[in-house]
Parts: sequence; C-alpha cells; structure tokens
Amino acid sequence: MAVFKQKSRWDRELGFGTKNYKRSERFINRDGSINVKRTGLGGLNNLDVYHWLISIRQNTFILVIIAWYIAINLFFATVYYLIGPDHFGGIDATSPFLKFMALFFFSAQTITTLGYGHIYPIGNGASIAAAVESLLGLLSFAIATGVLFGRFSRPRAEILYSKNILIAPYDDITGLMFRISNKMQYELMEAEASVTMTLNNPETNRREFLNLALEINHIDYLALTWTIVHPIDENSPIYGLTAKDLEERDAEVLVLVKAINDTFSQTVYSRYSYKWDDIVEKARFKPLNQEPDHRGKLRISITDIHIYDRVN
Amino acid sequence: MAVFKQKSRWDRELGFGTKNYKRSERFINRDGSINVKRTGLGGLNNLDVYHWLISIRQNTFILVIIAWYIAINLFFATVYYLIGPDHFGGIDATSPFLKFMALFFFSAQTITTLGYGHIYPIGNGASIAAAVESLLGLLSFAIATGVLFGRFSRPRAEILYSKNILIAPYDDITGLMFRISNKMQYELMEAEASVTMTLNNPETNRREFLNLALEINHIDYLALTWTIVHPIDENSPIYGLTAKDLEERDAEVLVLVKAINDTFSQTVYSRYSYKWDDIVEKARFKPLNQEPDHRGKLRISITDIHIYDRVN
Amino acid sequence: MAVFKQKSRWDRELGFGTKNYKRSERFINRDGSINVKRTGLGGLNNLDVYHWLISIRQNTFILVIIAWYIAINLFFATVYYLIGPDHFGGIDATSPFLKFMALFFFSAQTITTLGYGHIYPIGNGASIAAAVESLLGLLSFAIATGVLFGRFSRPRAEILYSKNILIAPYDDITGLMFRISNKMQYELMEAEASVTMTLNNPETNRREFLNLALEINHIDYLALTWTIVHPIDENSPIYGLTAKDLEERDAEVLVLVKAINDTFSQTVYSRYSYKWDDIVEKARFKPLNQEPDHRGKLRISITDIHIYDRVN
Amino acid sequence: MAVFKQKSRWDRELGFGTKNYKRSERFINRDGSINVKRTGLGGLNNLDVYHWLISIRQNTFILVIIAWYIAINLFFATVYYLIGPDHFGGIDATSPFLKFMALFFFSAQTITTLGYGHIYPIGNGASIAAAVESLLGLLSFAIATGVLFGRFSRPRAEILYSKNILIAPYDDITGLMFRISNKMQYELMEAEASVTMTLNNPETNRREFLNLALEINHIDYLALTWTIVHPIDENSPIYGLTAKDLEERDAEVLVLVKAINDTFSQTVYSRYSYKWDDIVEKARFKPLNQEPDHRGKLRISITDIHIYDRVN
Repeated sequence: MAVFKQKSRWDRELGFGTKNYKRSERFINRDGSINVKRTGLGGLNNLDVYHWLISIRQNTFILVIIAWYIAINLFFATVYYLIGPDHFGGIDATSPFLKFMALFFFSAQTITTLGYGHIYPIGNGASIAAAVESLLGLLSFAIATGVLFGRFSRPRAEILYSKNILIAPYDDITGLMFRISNKMQYELMEAEASVTMTLNNPETNRREFLNLALEINHIDYLALTWTIVHPIDENSPIYGLTAKDLEERDAEVLVLVKAINDTFSQTVYSRYSYKWDDIVEKARFKPLNQEPDHRGKLRISITDIHIYDRVN
Repeated sequence: MAVFKQKSRWDRELGFGTKNYKRSERFINRDGSINVKRTGLGGLNNLDVYHWLISIRQNTFILVIIAWYIAINLFFATVYYLIGPDHFGGIDATSPFLKFMALFFFSAQTITTLGYGHIYPIGNGASIAAAVESLLGLLSFAIATGVLFGRFSRPRAEILYSKNILIAPYDDITGLMFRISNKMQYELMEAEASVTMTLNNPETNRREFLNLALEINHIDYLALTWTIVHPIDENSPIYGLTAKDLEERDAEVLVLVKAINDTFSQTVYSRYSYKWDDIVEKARFKPLNQEPDHRGKLRISITDIHIYDRVN
Repeated sequence: MAVFKQKSRWDRELGFGTKNYKRSERFINRDGSINVKRTGLGGLNNLDVYHWLISIRQNTFILVIIAWYIAINLFFATVYYLIGPDHFGGIDATSPFLKFMALFFFSAQTITTLGYGHIYPIGNGASIAAAVESLLGLLSFAIATGVLFGRFSRPRAEILYSKNILIAPYDDITGLMFRISNKMQYELMEAEASVTMTLNNPETNRREFLNLALEINHIDYLALTWTIVHPIDENSPIYGLTAKDLEERDAEVLVLVKAINDTFSQTVYSRYSYKWDDIVEKARFKPLNQEPDHRGKLRISITDIHIYDRVN
Repeated sequence: MAVFKQKSRWDRELGFGTKNYKRSERFINRDGSINVKRTGLGGLNNLDVYHWLISIRQNTFILVIIAWYIAINLFFATVYYLIGPDHFGGIDATSPFLKFMALFFFSAQTITTLGYGHIYPIGNGASIAAAVESLLGLLSFAIATGVLFGRFSRPRAEILYSKNILIAPYDDITGLMFRISNKMQYELMEAEASVTMTLNNPETNRREFLNLALEINHIDYLALTWTIVHPIDENSPIYGLTAKDLEERDAEVLVLVKAINDTFSQTVYSRYSYKWDDIVEKARFKPLNQEPDHRGKLRISITDIHIYDRVN
C-alpha cells in the first residue's frame, strides 16, 4: 500500500476536523448540501425563516402560501364571528355556517385589500378588526414580495456534474477526471474549480483532506463543457493508491466550483461530492458532439457528459 | 507565413475547446452573447423563467404583461360564467356576451384588488373563485414587482465599441487597437480589459486562443474614451501575421471589459467580438474633440470613437 | 515585566488612534457594535432612516409600524373631520366621537387601498384628501416592502463565540484560543479570522494594536466548530505577558470574522471582543461530541463550545 | 523650479487623458461627480431612467411622483370624460367641471386600486379604460417600490472631508495631509484611500497624473477620524514644488476612498477633489477632542476635522 507523502504539502483546512468516522459518512451530499446538523440553541433559534422560505422547493412554497391564506382567513372569520355577524352590513345569510362563510369571504376581501364593500363592518369592534387585518394583509404581501424576489434572484450555479469520476489515461500517466457543464441558457464566466480528496489515514487513524492540484483550475467561459483533471503523477498525494485503497480508506472527492453569473454579475457556488464507489478505473470520457447548426451556432447536448468508454 | 511562438506563453483557457471549426463561426456575437446552444435536458428544463423575464427586451416584456392580464381575466371570466352569472350581484346585462364581459371586468377588478363592489360574488362558489383570484393577483404583482426591480437594477455596462479594430502605427512598431467609451451618463470606475485572439493553427489543425498583452489594461475612470492597445512587437503572438493570414485562419478578437458601476458599486461585464473582416490595416484613430464648455465641463461626442484616418 | 518587541512587526492600523484611555474602555462591544458616537453635524443629520429601520430589533420595528398606522389614521381622521363629516356618504353615526371613529376607519380603509365604499367622499375637498391619502398609503407600503426585504436579506453572520478566551497548552508552548460556530442552519464558507490585541504600553503611554498571527486563519467551511489559535511563541507580541500584565494594561482582544453566506453568496462580517477578564489561564477546551446520527448526518451541539477544563 | 522625476515611477492611468487644459478645469467636482459630459448618441439614448430616479435628490423625487400622479389622473379623467360621464354610475354632479372632477377622483381611486365603488364604470368602454388604468397603477407602484428600494439601499459612503489639505510638518520633513470621517452612525470598515495629483507639466505641455504614496493607505475601521498623509520626501513626485508652483501648474488632488458598509457588506466609494487653492501651507491639524462619555463610549465631534492651526 502506498505511503502518504509529507502531510504539509497538500493538506487543506476544510473545517470538517480530522476525526476518523466509520465508513458510510459523507461530508457533502449529492445535492451539494453539507451533511451536518447543528443543535444546542434550543427550539427554532437556529432557524432563519427568510432563509427557510428562500430555500424550500417551489411546491412547498406554494403550499405554505395557500395554508397561510386559509389559516389567516379562518382566524379572522372566527374573530368576526365572535364580534357578531350582525356587526357587518350586507350579510343576508341565515344559517350560522353560511354567516361564517360570508365572514370568511369578507376576511379574504379585506386581507387582499380587495374590499368589494357589499359586506362592510358596522361599529368600532368590527372596524378595528378589519383595519388590523388589512394592515396585516399589506405587510404579508410586502413580505411575500420580498421572499419571491429573494427566491428568484438568489444566486445559483446550476451545474451538471458527470455521474462518475474516472481514472483515465492522461498523457503518459493517468488522471482523475470528471466533467461539468452549465445546465442553464444564461452564461457562467470565470469558472474556478477546487478539488479535495478526504480519506482515512490508517497510520495516524485520522481523516485527511488532500488538495488535488488541477491541470487547469480556471476557465473564462463555462460555455461548453469542462473536463477537470487532476494528473496522478509522482507529485500527487494519491499517486500509487488503487481503487481498493480508496474504498478501504473511505475516500470522498469534494468539489467546489465558483463562477460568475453573467446576468447578475453574482458570484455563485456549486458543490458536489463523489464517493469512492463513483470512481471508475480504466475509462475515458467520450468526446462530445459539438457541431455548429445551420445558423452557425455551436450546439451541445450536455447530458452526454456522463458517457465514457472502457479502455484497457 | 509566420510561425506560432511557443504555445504556452500566451495560451488562454477560454473554455471553448480547441476544435477547428469551419470558417464563419463566431464564439461571441456582436451583442456580447455567447454563440452556444446547450440542449439535452429536454423541454424547458434549462430555462429559468426569471432570467428570461429579466433578459427580454422592454417591448417584449410589456407584451408579456398585457398577454398575461388578458389571459388571466379570460380564464376567470370563464370560471365565473360557468359558476353562473346569477351568482354575482349587480349584473344587469341581458345578453350572454354582455354578461361575460361584465364578469371579465369583475375579474379585472378582482385581480387588481380594485374591488369597486358594484358587482360582487354571491354564494360560496363565486366567493371562493374571487378569493383565489385576488390572492393570485397579489402574488402576480409581487412577482411583477420583483421582476421589474430585477430588470432595472440588473448590472449593465453599456459600452460603445469602435466599429473597427485597427492595425495602426504605435511608437516605432504597430499596434492592434480599438476604442471604447461609456454610453451612459453614470460613471464606470476601475475599468479592466482583456483581449484574446482566437484563430486556427494550420500546423496542429486546432483552434488556438492567444492572450494579447495590453499596453495598459486598467484605468481608474472610464470618463472619456479608452484606446485599448496591443503592441505588435516581437513578443506578440501575432507578430508577423498579415491581414490575409488572419482571414485564412479565421481570426476573431474576443474582448472582455470589466468595470464598477458607480451608482450601485456593482461589477459589470461587457463582451464584444471583432471578426477578421473588422480589422483595418494602415489606419489611425482620429483624436476626439475634447474641449471644456462654458461651465468648464469636459464634453465629448462618443460616437466619434468610430472615426479613423488612413495612413501610409 | 516583558518588554514589547519592535513595534513595526505586529503593528496594525485599526483606526482607533493610539490614545491611552483610562481602564474600562471597550473599543468593540460584546454585540459587535463599535463603541464610538460621532456628533457634530447637528440634529439627525447623521441618521440614515433606512439604516435605522433595517437595524432595529424585530419588536421595535413592529411597534414603529403600528405607531405609524395609528398616527397616520388619526391625522387623516382629523383632516376629514375638519372638512366635515357631512362630506362623506354612508356615515350614520350621531355623536361627534362616533363620527370621528367612522372617519378614522374610513382613513384606514383608504390608506390600505381597501376601499369598501360604504363610506365614501363627497365633494372636492374630501375627495382630494382621500386621493392624497391613498397615494401616501401606496408609497408607505412600497417603502415597507423595501424595508422588510432589506431586513430579511441583510447580510448576517450569526456566529457564536465561546464565552472565554483561553491560554491553553498548545504543542510544547501555550496558545491564546477561542472557539466559534455558525449558529444557523445555512452554511458559511471561506471563513477568515483576524485577531488584534489592544493594550496600553506603559513605556510610551500610548495604546497599541498588535496583530496576533493565527495558526490557521482560513477554513473552507464553517460547518462544525473552529478553534482559532494564536501560538504564544517567541515571535508573539504577547510572549511573556502574564494575566496580571494584561489586566494592568487593560487588554482587549478584537476579533473579526469574515465569511460567505452560502444562500446569497454574500460576504458577511462578524465582530467580537474579549476583555482581559474574559481570559482564562491554564484551561483547555473540551472536545465536542461529534457523532453521526442514525442517518449518517454529523450532529454537534454548538453551545458546548463554551465548555473548558482546568489543566495544571 | 523643481524638475519632475522619472515619469514612470508615479504615473497613474486615471482615464482622463493627458491634454493640457486651461486653468480653472476640475476633473472631479466637489460633490464627487466627474466633470465630464458625454454626448453623441442623440436625445435621451444615454439616459437610464432608473439611474436617474435613483440619483435625484429626495425633494425632486417627491415632485416627480406628485407630478406623475396628477398627470396620469388628468389623462384618465379626460379619457373617461370623452367616453362620457353617463357611462359611470354614482355621479350626481351637474356641471361639466364637477363631472370632470368626479371622474378625476374616480381615476385616483382606480389607479391606487382603492375602488370605493360609489362611482363605477358602466358598459365596455368605461370598464376597459378602468381595467387598463388599474393595471397601469399596479405596475407604476411596482416600479415605485423598486425605485424606492433602490434609492434606500443604494451603496453610499457619506464621508466628510476636511475643507483644506495642509502641507504640515511631518516627522523631520513635511507631508500633504487631509482628514476624513464617517458622517453616519453606521460603520465603515476596511477603508482604503488612493490619492492622485494632476498638474500640467510645463516641459512636455501635457497633463500628468501622479500617484501620491500614502504613509498608511488602509485602516480596519473608520470609526473615529483618519488623517491621510503623503510624506513629501525625496521620493515624492511633488518634492520641492512650492504652493506657487502648484498654482501655476493648476494642481488638483483627486481622492478616492473605498470602504465596506457594515450594515450591507457593500463596497462603497467616495470621491473628493482639492484644487490648488484649497492647499494651506505651514499649518497643522488640531487634534480632536476624543473623550469617553459617562457610559464609556468614545465621543467625537466630526466637524472639528476642519480645524487647523498655523505653524511657523
């Protein structure tokens, strides 16, 4: 088994500590999130509602809005009902249920500041409740405006990573390589990549984080695809390690890509992680078909970045 | 024909690959967009609606809003009509068409939360539909607010590039030069330029991307005009190449300008591309008239940056 | 007592001057704010209302909104009352107080653009006042939307600092060390720390600001905890100083942490300050329990960063 | 008269060209704006409305809103009048003027989406016009929300500059020095200054831009005041120049200060310019009174930065 080179040369401070966990741990999940849960503050003190609303998926967000709308209207309909349906003009319903429903719709017309006015408050109690509700409505929609804008304008790098990371022939040696592409039609510029391998060191019984030097770690435009290559030469910290070594040491390859979103001049980050069983030896990425169409525009099919061929 | 110098000295990783395309290709269009189409995800999966709304032209954006307004009102007018016009108070129209129109305008008054109230919903079905529509209206206008703000505040560098790129006398040698100016009245600071020439290498049959070193690549204020000069001395990768060589090798000059928008402290990018037929040999830019007006303010006419004189 | 080393080696320009204040001064408060009050412009000229609204606490902000809502409605109710309750249709109140209250609620329905319409202005005076109020209402809520968004999206680094700063054994020497952790569930990346000690120099009778070099001053992810260590070796400006020296010289340790908020790609800052009486000698931080849960997610209780053990 | 030192050592590319203008020119105005007018695109093509609305003063902005509100309501009142007052229910005015006024207020209630409903449209023409106006109203207020937020959140460095720039004793030599302070209560961090002197060179008859090296060009917190000093030693490009020389050569000192606004983590810029007649020889800034108040908070009166004493 290969011996680790002098630690200090590649050592990288990721902030995950050096504890040697049991196999099966991931530091970074496949979706780019970090596999850590911080507790200790109690309750929801470490939850930022805005961050949560920004981060949840589109469907969950829509459900949150609908649930809020129904709940707030039920709440105010109950308040209005307790004040008494006879404090509202224009209600000609007879049954308690229909009166409640009329107040429910009056609430909806109030919180949205629609205010048709065919139902209207009479007296101070009902008027105060309606004045509070309409203020609350405006503030809610002010918040919704901010959250929606926050969701839309949130910096994102939608990067597609090849499913596997290959140990492929590279010049006279081999290289650890994977491919990425921009998923979206807007452009990413000044892309930078940094790749770290983390594995257990059986001698020290600690987890090590090794910086893998890249052949090229910056490109000006991520317009087509980018094959990111770590040459496994004698200067590489993983020189001489076999696939079996990587499995035994529970290797994980942590990838960080940084780029500038062209539309908003925002710096965006993308994380990905390959676990040892994503590594394929003796394979080579198939070059992408990259032909101009009839209008002279280059055309690539980005899902082809996953395709590789076996080599001997 | 001149021989390329040692590749590694000027080589630049733009991310466009090194494939030798047929003539007529552009990497960057004249409007600064990148001439690449990425497919493979299927359908609209690589479309970000917000990016699209932010990026479309003003007139298209207005049409989208008007189309949405008409469509949503037609939709809800149909829903209300199916619920039945008799579930709405205040409609005194007699013909089906006029009833539909009344419901269409009721929908418009609902979605905008205008709510005059001369027409109003009666019963649960109509009230629920109106409550849904008013919520939808508020969310739509929340989105519109965000999109409009995104459009306005989007970082932009409105830079005017001279129509041609000249090979002009420069000290004792020649230089490849073009001029830029800020189109707008707000200021751009800390302007930086980077210029890359891409051409086919007939020996390797690959496309090369050569960094053209600039005499000055940074100025503090882009207040007047900036003539960006690459001196064609013996250290230049294009030293000895003739205009005919550039044509045969299908040369393209890729320009990236980066600056800071003074009003918003935003970093902004501008791209431009000159194709070989934009290159003019034996010409010199005419100095701009740059006189203070009666109040001591410097005045320049920026469209004069296109003007050059022939020299022998 | 130890002698200060050559000043120029660690000297740091913080911008607090070098005046030797009496003991008990702090430069940075425990909440990270800077302990300076700037006057001289007179009145509120150095107050930026937006900054103030963004910075006040949530409860204060809610009170400001409620107070504004009541005040503006009282103001317009008074205006309407002065115009005359008989210029408003739909008021069937008889007592002056009830008329005023009806106009107060009419104002609330106007400023929120609710507009039920059961009360409505008659004649030019009342109509003008209502038109002004509704414009004011829309602008107020436009401002509220901006302020709420500003509050939510404001860059923050919610970092928990250990209550004490220890002088602990470190390799063969000692080190000044404290621990930090991210309080929130969102991630902070590319964390950087800088630590400055400020103390009075009894020889020059000036206040000095000494940069304390860190063992590691950058980590890629602030996912778990970070123990920030200044090794007190012979190169340290505080080498040889005892706890009593630090007290006599009124030492304060100023900490600045900079990181990138992952959700918004924003650079965020966090400041903290330890005063000499926060320093604990002969103690060592207790390692955190850092075990994966049943789903393989690392779990830490961040409040454990305060815990230390005495050593001899 | 002193001879300029070797040009290349201090030469700075500001982007203002090297033309030797007549005296009385300023490159940067006292308010920090750049004294250049760019024309040539014709009409308003170089005006960005959003930038303009963001940049105008508060009072002008309020006038723009009021003017827009009156104009749009006059426009729609005219449209409604042309459609015919009898297409609107609830108008009981008799004179044409009062009818017009009623329609004007109906317009105001429509564009704000207030919609009392005591006046309401009858028939398709009036309803279409009202539907258009309410859409326009919502979009206008969406724009207003964005512009107001843009105005509030616009990065600003409100820095106070001392009225004069002194040539004061400094160690054994003299120094060119001025003082700055943060005007506001929020904090500015990581302040950086760059100072350039521009003057005519009588030998070359060109304008030169000379970088003035600073004793300290970066401080961590701009909490108190900062005296920015250029030591006039033998390495200074202005070594040996007298005040009379500076006047004859029409000297201007261009100052750029860059800092980070603490509340928003925004990089902010501030520009200032001293003309030769702002230079005071044989003077020294009076130290500021900088005492802690009873709660231990440092207190400074920032307008004292202008005060200097004559020295011999």
